[in-house]
Amino acid sequence: MAAPSRKMILATFIHNSGAHPGGWRYPSAAPVDQHDFRVYAHLAQTAERGKMHCYFSGDSQGYPHIKGRDAFAATDYAGKLEPTTLLAALAVSTRHIGLIATASTTYNEPYSIARRYASLDHISGGRAGWNVVTSASDSEARNFGRDLLMDHDARYARAEEFVDVVKNLWDSWEDGAHIRDRDAGRYIDPDRVHQLDHEGPHFKVAGPLNVGRPPQGHPIIVQAGGSGAGRALSARTADMVFTAANSLDAAKTFYADMKRRAAGFGRNPDHVLIIPSVQLMVRSTEKEARQAEEELLDLVPTALALRTLQLQLGVDLSAYGPNDKLPDLPLTNGGQWVQQQIIKMARDEDLTIGQLARRVVVSRASYSLAGTPEQVADMCELWFREGGADGFSLSPNYMPGALEDFVDQVIPILQKRGLFRTDYEGETLRENLGLPRPPNAFTINPALGREPSMWA
Amino acid sequence: MAAPSRKMILATFIHNSGAHPGGWRYPSAAPVDQHDFRVYAHLAQTAERGKMHCYFSGDSQGYPHIKGRDAFAATDYAGKLEPTTLLAALAVSTRHIGLIATASTTYNEPYSIARRYASLDHISGGRAGWNVVTSASDSEARNFGRDLLMDHDARYARAEEFVDVVKNLWDSWEDGAHIRDRDAGRYIDPDRVHQLDHEGPHFKVAGPLNVGRPPQGHPIIVQAGGSGAGRALSARTADMVFTAANSLDAAKTFYADMKRRAAGFGRNPDHVLIIPSVQLMVRSTEKEARQAEEELLDLVPTALALRTLQLQLGVDLSAYGPNDKLPDLPLTNGGQWVQQQIIKMARDEDLTIGQLARRVVVSRASYSLAGTPEQVADMCELWFREGGADGFSLSPNYMPGALEDFVDQVIPILQKRGLFRTDYEGETLRENLGLPRPPNAFTINPALGREPSMWA
Repeated sequence: MAAPSRKMILATFIHNSGAHPGGWRYPSAAPVDQHDFRVYAHLAQTAERGKMHCYFSGDSQGYPHIKGRDAFAATDYAGKLEPTTLLAALAVSTRHIGLIATASTTYNEPYSIARRYASLDHISGGRAGWNVVTSASDSEARNFGRDLLMDHDARYARAEEFVDVVKNLWDSWEDGAHIRDRDAGRYIDPDRVHQLDHEGPHFKVAGPLNVGRPPQGHPIIVQAGGSGAGRALSARTADMVFTAANSLDAAKTFYADMKRRAAGFGRNPDHVLIIPSVQLMVRSTEKEARQAEEELLDLVPTALALRTLQLQLGVDLSAYGPNDKLPDLPLTNGGQWVQQQIIKMARDEDLTIGQLARRVVVSRASYSLAGTPEQVADMCELWFREGGADGFSLSPNYMPGALEDFVDQVIPILQKRGLFRTDYEGETLRENLGLPRPPNAFTINPALGREPSMWA
Repeated sequence: MAAPSRKMILATFIHNSGAHPGGWRYPSAAPVDQHDFRVYAHLAQTAERGKMHCYFSGDSQGYPHIKGRDAFAATDYAGKLEPTTLLAALAVSTRHIGLIATASTTYNEPYSIARRYASLDHISGGRAGWNVVTSASDSEARNFGRDLLMDHDARYARAEEFVDVVKNLWDSWEDGAHIRDRDAGRYIDPDRVHQLDHEGPHFKVAGPLNVGRPPQGHPIIVQAGGSGAGRALSARTADMVFTAANSLDAAKTFYADMKRRAAGFGRNPDHVLIIPSVQLMVRSTEKEARQAEEELLDLVPTALALRTLQLQLGVDLSAYGPNDKLPDLPLTNGGQWVQQQIIKMARDEDLTIGQLARRVVVSRASYSLAGTPEQVADMCELWFREGGADGFSLSPNYMPGALEDFVDQVIPILQKRGLFRTDYEGETLRENLGLPRPPNAFTINPALGREPSMWA
C-alpha cells in the first residue's frame, strides 16, 4: 500500500512532568523540576540524537480550579513554561529538530502570534511549528475575562479566520524584500512589502508584519482537533495533524477521513501528515513491560484519576461512585473528540467510572505501546503500512527514560527496516518533513489587501 | 553626594539595526541581517564580557504606513524579532546578563504576559525584565482591531491595573509550593497556591498562573514613560526607569522628580533606578569623534529624517518645507514626553524643521557622547555623581562597533575609577542590580483574592 521509500515522521510530545501522572514518581524517572530548562534541553537533544522530526510542546493557559486535597498530586498544569519562550531557548540548544509550540486562537491576537512564530522560525533557522488550539477549558476562560468557555463552533469560526490572517501576515514581506544595499541606501524594497487591510467578523488587521518572511515561508501548522469543526480546520490549513486513536481501526478511519477532507479542499493529501500520539513502555519481555505499566498506574492516586476523568469529560461526576457506570452525558463546549472517544471506550468495554478513570488518566485516549523493542517497532510498522499513520508522536510517560528507550532501542530497528531516516535530509523542518515551501499569497493574488477579502 | 561605594548600572538598548538610522551603512558596521539571531547573540555576549547589567530589547508591534519612496531606507521597524522569544534564546547564549524585553499593556492580556515573563525568568535563571509600554503609535493600533490609538490617559489607566494583576499572578504560587515528594505522592501544596479572582475595570482574571513563582520573585519592571501618567506608573511600580535627556540639567530634574515620586508611594527611592539612554562615538580625539558623527549623519536621507520627525511628533508636516520653523503643535495621544522634548529643542535652539529632523533622527532626544574614552567616562561620571543618573543605557549607533568600543575602551576606565564593578556580584538580575526580592503579596495580605480588591 505504502511506497517503499515512504518514511515515518517521528515526533515527541512533551508534557512537562511526563505524559503519565504517575511518571514523576516512577523509580527510574529523573527528579523533575518542571521549571528547569535543562530538563527540556536534555529531552530535545535526545530526540535530535534519534533524528526525530520534532519536539512538540503542548499547552494550556490555565490551572484547573483547585478542589480539595485531590489537587496535591496534580502535576500536569503545575508549572508549564510558556511554549514559544521555551522553544526559542531550545532552538539554541539544538540544531536540526523541529520545534512545535502550542498557542490558542481564542486568547491571542493574530498579529502577536504571527510575529512570535515568525521570530521563532528566524531564530531557529526554519524549524518552527505552530500547534493551533482553540482552548477547551473553563479554567482558561476565567483567566481571560470570561466566566465560561466560548461556544465550540464559535471558537472554530474564530480559529479559521485567525489562521488565514496569520498566514497572510507571514507573507506580508516577500522573500528578498530586504535589499540592504548600503551604497544606494536602500534597506528595503517597498514594492515587496504589503498591507493586508484585513477586515473580518473577528479581526481587523492592517499589517504588514514587522518581521520578514519566515525561512520556511510559513512555519508548520499543526492541529489536533478531532471534532467536525476541528477536522475541517485541519484539512484546510494544517501541515500536520496530531491525533489520539486507541485502535488501528480508529486510526485508519480518522486517517482516511482526513486525507479525503484535505483533497476536498484541493490539497495534496500527502501534504497533511497524520500523526497519532502513543505512549511507550519498552522492556526485554512483553510481560515485564505490562508489569511496568501496572507499577506506574499504581503511583496515581484514585482521587486524581477521577478528577482527570471529570476534567477530560468536562462534567461533574461527584454524584457517582467509582463502581457506577458512566451516565449519559451531553457534549460540552470543550474537546468534543476526546470526550466521544472516552465515552465510546466506557460503553464498548462496559467499564465502571473507576476503571475508566484509570484508563483515561494514563492514556488521554492515546495508544499505549508496551512490549519489547521489536514488538513496539512492529506496531509502528503495522499502523504506518496499513494506512493508520504517517508517523507517531511519542509522549514519554516518565522522563527521560521513556524517550531514551525509544531513541536507543526502537528507532534503530525502524531505521534497519528502512522505515525511518538515518539523518536529517534538509535544513528546515519543512524540508525534513518533505513538505513544499508555500508560495506567497500576495504574489499569487495581487489583489490581496487591495480589495475586500473573503472575510469581509 | 553619592556614596563612594555606589556603582553605576550599565545597560545596552539594542535597536535591531543600530540606534542610528545611518548606522547600517557606516563603513565599519558589520552587514546586519536583522533576522539573524547570531547578531544579537554577539551583542549580548559582548555586553556580558563588559559585565554590563542588561541587554534591553525595545519593541513596537507595527510598521508605520509606507508612504512613497522615503520608506526605502527605513530600517528600524523592518524586521524586529519579537523580544520575549529573542531573549529566551539569548538566555541560552549568555550566563549572567539581564534580559529585558518590551511588551505592551495595550495589546496583550495580563495572564499571557505574566506567564511569558515568568517563563523567561525560569529559563534564564532569574535574569528577566519586563519593559512595560503602552504603545504610542497608530500603526500598532491598526494591527489590533482599532483605527486609532487609544487615548493616552486611558492607556495608562489600563497599564496600572495590568501591572498589578501581573505581579499578583507571579505571586499566585508561593515559593516552595512545589513539594515534589515522590514517596508521599504530593507534588504541590495546595495551601500555597492562590487564586486572584481579580475583577477590575479592565480585567477579570481568576488565576492562579500555571507557572511557579519566578526565581526573582518578580522579574524586573522597567518603564520609560516620561509624561505625568508615565511617571506615576513608574514611580509606583517600576524597578528601573529608562529615560532620554539631552542635558545634565534635564536629567537632574527628571531624576529628582522620580525619586521624590517614588518616596511619595512609600518606596525606597534607591529602589527605582534612573537610567538615561546615551549614544556613543569614541575616537582617539574629540575632533575625530565629531567628524565620525557627521559622517554617520550624512548617511541618512533627508526624506527619512523628515519622516522620522513626523512619526515622533505624531503629526503631518508635509505642508511645511525643511527651512520652515516648527508650527505650534497640539500634544497627541502618542509619546507625549518625547514630543515635548523635541518641541522644546526646536524652540530653545531656534531650529528649522530640516535641522530638527537631523537632530531627532539621530538622537530620538537621547544624549550623544562623542569624544575620547576618557571624555566619555568623564561625562558618565559627572551625570552619575551630580544626581542625573544611576547609570546609563547605551544605544549603539552602529553595530557591533559602538558597543565594542564602550566595552573595551570606556568600561575599563569606569572600573579603574571605582565607578563600575569588575564582575557580576550575584546570580539574578535583581541581585546584580542591588534590588531586594519582593515579598509575596498573598503572604503579606491573606485577604488577597478572598475579598474585593482595590480594583473592584
